[in-house]
Amino acid sequence: MKKIIDIRIQSKTIDATAPTVYLIGAGPGANDLITVRGAQILGKANIVFYDALIDSEMLQWCPQAKLIEVGKRCGRFSTAQQFINQQLIHAAKNYPIVVRLKGGDPLIFGRATEEMNALDEAGIEFEVVPGITTALAACATLKQAPTSRNISRSIKITTLPSRLDYQEIQTQIFYMGREQLAGIAEQLIGEGYSLETPVCLTASVSLPEQIVHRTNLGQLIHANPNELFPNNNPVLVLIGEVFRLHKKNASTLTDQLESFPPEINPFYKLAI
Amino acid sequence: MKKIIDIRIQSKTIDATAPTVYLIGAGPGANDLITVRGAQILGKANIVFYDALIDSEMLQWCPQAKLIEVGKRCGRFSTAQQFINQQLIHAAKNYPIVVRLKGGDPLIFGRATEEMNALDEAGIEFEVVPGITTALAACATLKQAPTSRNISRSIKITTLPSRLDYQEIQTQIFYMGREQLAGIAEQLIGEGYSLETPVCLTASVSLPEQIVHRTNLGQLIHANPNELFPNNNPVLVLIGEVFRLHKKNASTLTDQLESFPPEINPFYKLAI
Repeated sequence: MKKIIDIRIQSKTIDATAPTVYLIGAGPGANDLITVRGAQILGKANIVFYDALIDSEMLQWCPQAKLIEVGKRCGRFSTAQQFINQQLIHAAKNYPIVVRLKGGDPLIFGRATEEMNALDEAGIEFEVVPGITTALAACATLKQAPTSRNISRSIKITTLPSRLDYQEIQTQIFYMGREQLAGIAEQLIGEGYSLETPVCLTASVSLPEQIVHRTNLGQLIHANPNELFPNNNPVLVLIGEVFRLHKKNASTLTDQLESFPPEINPFYKLAI
Repeated sequence: MKKIIDIRIQSKTIDATAPTVYLIGAGPGANDLITVRGAQILGKANIVFYDALIDSEMLQWCPQAKLIEVGKRCGRFSTAQQFINQQLIHAAKNYPIVVRLKGGDPLIFGRATEEMNALDEAGIEFEVVPGITTALAACATLKQAPTSRNISRSIKITTLPSRLDYQEIQTQIFYMGREQLAGIAEQLIGEGYSLETPVCLTASVSLPEQIVHRTNLGQLIHANPNELFPNNNPVLVLIGEVFRLHKKNASTLTDQLESFPPEINPFYKLAI
């Protein structure tokens, strides 16, 4: 049984006058499990580069767009990724709205870092629209929560690599960390994390009043949450080497950001 | 700058004739970061129970609904949760479409297990609509991937509890596990996980052709992925005590499921 329903959406995100690339997460598969924002941008896209695994019904959101499948099933990953990067840059110079549509969340095991770096180096603006990552969508279909009181308070989302030829620094993200900043820092330092490990604190994520503070694990011990987040909302604590700011992506955030805060002012705010 | 855009959505999920409770994830905050499915169900809801932290703009999706704030900021968590459970059951007996709207993903640190169990015990049908969890939405606003080649291939999503008065079994979810089922099992058994730890294997999540197999860690070593998932799509491997089937939630899935497979037939399929 299918029904057609009209809904009205207030758009705050699309400005068709500036050429922009959108990295959009399509979610797990069903075409109504993309975000409203993702569906809406697809509906205005000039060209869409989509993963081979994207379901064809998902592409019904963008009947007007030129569609390019960028399959990576051939095994030649590096070459293919570089070619995708080049295609995105080329398209951004020729179309106002370019979409890179990825399954699940675009930032989870999706080689997004390489695409973002390539766009950044080419001076092309881009936005990231999150998607439902398949791990959590699967739990929804099973009707079983991955965290549950008195059973598990942590989820590890990972892959088993065929080989691990580097020293892994596991990314850790803590919910509801406002009153526990020092405790979190002490726990991870005790587990062997370096004092220099990048830390990102944020609240009111995705809202106009979102606050972001960047620091490192050594300084997190001395952070005063009520000064940093006066609005009393829950604070998310993101920790790991992946959150280090390099010059190339610092420029995509804001000129206010530096690669690390000076000692005298360990925290500073980014207005998004 | 705000624009109003009409989009047409094909609904495959709402059947207003059967009374149903929907546990919906609102996402991180912005009202266009809810899923299309979530927005659409809100637009047909008779009554919506929403968390205190839900942004008021999100409620613009359901101007027709009766709105009930279920704040849990008072500190009396247990009492409040039981009261919410009772309210949901009462509403389901009086309205065809009841929504429980939670920030982020409804199954992440949201006490959803207690609500699902209460609904199940009361014989009330429910569905779970996933939402963008705040941890990953934050990465999108930062434009930094939590996994990145040669830095980190794993994310731990957690809280720091004030006390941990139980033996935690960390939930682990592996992407792209098709060719590595035995390796994953051996790794976790080596880390001390019990052979009886529940395992869920799934592919084509959220699509009509989704396949789910349930087994345990000891049997995972002998699994043949090409027999279990003949369509060659990526396989997600969910492992942890949270995925154990109890009688009460087994009935919400399908009568085909049993609490664990017999030795002679270690895998079986659930058509969702």
